[in-house]
Amino acid sequence: MNPSSSAFLTDLYQLTMLQGYFDAKMDRIAVFEFFVRRLPANRNFLVSAGLDQVLDFLESFECTAQELGWLEASGNFSREFVSHLRTTRFTGDVHAMPEGEIFFANEPILRVTAPIAEAQVVETRIVNLLHFQALIASKAVRCAITAPGKALVDFGLRRAHGAEAGLLAARACYLTGFTATSNVLAGQTYQIPLSGTMAHSFIQASDSEVEAFRRFALANPNNVTLLLDTYDTEAAAEKVVQLAPTLKSQGISIRGVRLDSGDLGEHARRVRRILDDGKLQEVSIFASGNLDEFELQRLVRSGAPIDGFGVGTRVLTSADAPYLDCAYKIQEYNGRPLRKLSEGKATWPGRKQVYRSYRSGRMESDVITLEDDKMPGEALLQPVMRNGKRLRSNVTLFEIRQRVADQLRQLPPGLLSLECEEQHFPVSISDSLQEMARNLSLAYASKNSRSSA
Amino acid sequence: MNPSSSAFLTDLYQLTMLQGYFDAKMDRIAVFEFFVRRLPANRNFLVSAGLDQVLDFLESFECTAQELGWLEASGNFSREFVSHLRTTRFTGDVHAMPEGEIFFANEPILRVTAPIAEAQVVETRIVNLLHFQALIASKAVRCAITAPGKALVDFGLRRAHGAEAGLLAARACYLTGFTATSNVLAGQTYQIPLSGTMAHSFIQASDSEVEAFRRFALANPNNVTLLLDTYDTEAAAEKVVQLAPTLKSQGISIRGVRLDSGDLGEHARRVRRILDDGKLQEVSIFASGNLDEFELQRLVRSGAPIDGFGVGTRVLTSADAPYLDCAYKIQEYNGRPLRKLSEGKATWPGRKQVYRSYRSGRMESDVITLEDDKMPGEALLQPVMRNGKRLRSNVTLFEIRQRVADQLRQLPPGLLSLECEEQHFPVSISDSLQEMARNLSLAYASKNSRSSA
Repeated sequence: MNPSSSAFLTDLYQLTMLQGYFDAKMDRIAVFEFFVRRLPANRNFLVSAGLDQVLDFLESFECTAQELGWLEASGNFSREFVSHLRTTRFTGDVHAMPEGEIFFANEPILRVTAPIAEAQVVETRIVNLLHFQALIASKAVRCAITAPGKALVDFGLRRAHGAEAGLLAARACYLTGFTATSNVLAGQTYQIPLSGTMAHSFIQASDSEVEAFRRFALANPNNVTLLLDTYDTEAAAEKVVQLAPTLKSQGISIRGVRLDSGDLGEHARRVRRILDDGKLQEVSIFASGNLDEFELQRLVRSGAPIDGFGVGTRVLTSADAPYLDCAYKIQEYNGRPLRKLSEGKATWPGRKQVYRSYRSGRMESDVITLEDDKMPGEALLQPVMRNGKRLRSNVTLFEIRQRVADQLRQLPPGLLSLECEEQHFPVSISDSLQEMARNLSLAYASKNSRSSA
Repeated sequence: MNPSSSAFLTDLYQLTMLQGYFDAKMDRIAVFEFFVRRLPANRNFLVSAGLDQVLDFLESFECTAQELGWLEASGNFSREFVSHLRTTRFTGDVHAMPEGEIFFANEPILRVTAPIAEAQVVETRIVNLLHFQALIASKAVRCAITAPGKALVDFGLRRAHGAEAGLLAARACYLTGFTATSNVLAGQTYQIPLSGTMAHSFIQASDSEVEAFRRFALANPNNVTLLLDTYDTEAAAEKVVQLAPTLKSQGISIRGVRLDSGDLGEHARRVRRILDDGKLQEVSIFASGNLDEFELQRLVRSGAPIDGFGVGTRVLTSADAPYLDCAYKIQEYNGRPLRKLSEGKATWPGRKQVYRSYRSGRMESDVITLEDDKMPGEALLQPVMRNGKRLRSNVTLFEIRQRVADQLRQLPPGLLSLECEEQHFPVSISDSLQEMARNLSLAYASKNSRSSA
């Protein structure tokens, strides 16, 4: 079983609802949109990511014979319905913001238009994919903003939430501007540059630290980065200085050293001095250990002589905000716009579009409106799938990285701050959309009130 | 590609170290242990989980021809080494605490004894699997403790961090005592009971709320749970009362209603009154929406008439503590005990065992000691794999659930509080282990100090 493409990556209620749609012959076109209700405390903007995986999932959606046999044996679904599921594919249309687009609360970043059962059954996995990659891209981009010109490497696979989280997070980090990942499978799957040095165990298992350094250099002559903090960081730096001439005589240059504990800024200063005194000015210093964008900012602002950072757990779990308040909600059925009124969770109805305006090369404001309204500005949702088929081949990660970099230059500079800006980016709801919402609320109120029930 | 079993779920540095071990002919037995350095703020204990997946991974460890071809083409590894990797399997031994065991900081829950390259290359995935399931089990168990006698259903797949996270978290929740999951793939994979009702979209797409209720009941006559909060919760409850006799005449009973927004306790009270007044005393009330153990405790203590809860995002991301400070560290190589001295990350050396003492049926204290020490109490680490093969067939989830339930009864009652107990569970380090650690530190200090470098 390859769990990442199973049609059963869904909630049971999707299937019970599908049985209901099937029995009631409800098969008309529905429109669902994915959006984030509000931004976490420390985010001034979010970065869209995960569309490529969503389109893969939709294109290959199919229940296996084994899955269907199991479902029928459960006894909770009719034979006719299970038989119908056998031939169910995703045949709908998708509009979406491109990956790497900056977006804000309430803006749909993906819209699905399909027969209601098809649009419904894919909800869970669509949310699962878009939520997680947007979550990580929106966290990782803060590291990229904070440490410009520094190498940034994703070290997070081990404490990511499972294998797929590690894989997709490596991708999300890279598209925001990271330099590399340590995740070998991500390197192979997405052609992300790989980076890796040595662990403490390599040094501990050797008879001495200097012997471990020598062995590692001989085994990996093009990638000699030596870990200094197993016993005593500065003592290890002096051993690097002593070892360097011998290695040089064998044609091997030491590329870098890594610090992984203690006060990284202070160790970096001391180690830089030892390396420089030992004529190893070209050896770079790489730091890791409990880093996130706040710690990167502190180290960068302090002027610590660190050339690159390995970030892991706190970024790959988005530790300060490990989820987004997001939803995939029905907006229209059979041409009729719909609105949910649940307390604190009311939705904006209808098929929507987001228009973005710029002034002097900077994003100025967004407006959320109905699809048919024509507004000035750039329409951010574009068709990406028609009748279940992608409209173009995959966008490369390189193009997405470029888009993120371009967008960051276009953001109002205040939004680049790590702290929450008092001045939110202006996102307005158009008059036509407000009117539709108001009218639907009134209509529901008269139809569903207790008195008329 | 099935990403969950790939040997490339590893960090590049594991492979660069393996090249180093290979070149230096370092192939003796190493011992690594997995442990959590400290507990998160809101955890008085942790629950071990994920061992079954670790053993699966070790038993099937193998690089594919495609992976090896890619690795060789990268140019960073020798042809001889890549050829050696082709035949590399995991042939070592594993000792572990059983899944469902309660454990504390610094206690190894898994020990790998294998030729160093084999023990090294599996580090990343072992941490990835054990960390995540222990994280979620340790969060989910707090819900189970807080809401005894209530139905608890995992709703979290959509905001779990990827597909595997959703799958493994469903398992972790279930083994701590959850009733069911909404995750269809988890139901199929692990035989976890499935539970699911309807979403707002089903109601919105229908011509009226009562028509949606009727359709759903006809399509799922054995599982009629109706969602009340799409427009007006209490008005919907009255519609349920009006609909019930018609359904009853068709042989269909309404099992429950679900609340998903607003003040859940207050809505539950009002809905209970409406249902009872309508002679629907047997219809249960199920609540969902931003729930975690703290909110469950508040609702349960307030006496809200809620029979079951759906918990999702906050539990499946362990939102208040989305990672554990854990490690998989070398403790011995070729019979020589090892200690890492990195600031704030020093390890206890050697092959270790944890002994647990009980008094009057309650856990009293743990002691961490060397494997060869014989101590009173129960030895928690037991052999589970020898020469790369499991020693027994899989433990069932039912057995693990039973273990968790038994262990919770044996815990000192103060530790069951959701708040952090001032009185930690007593875990001591034996004299022999302290002496070994001291001696190793002294030996390293003389060998690795700057003056002797």
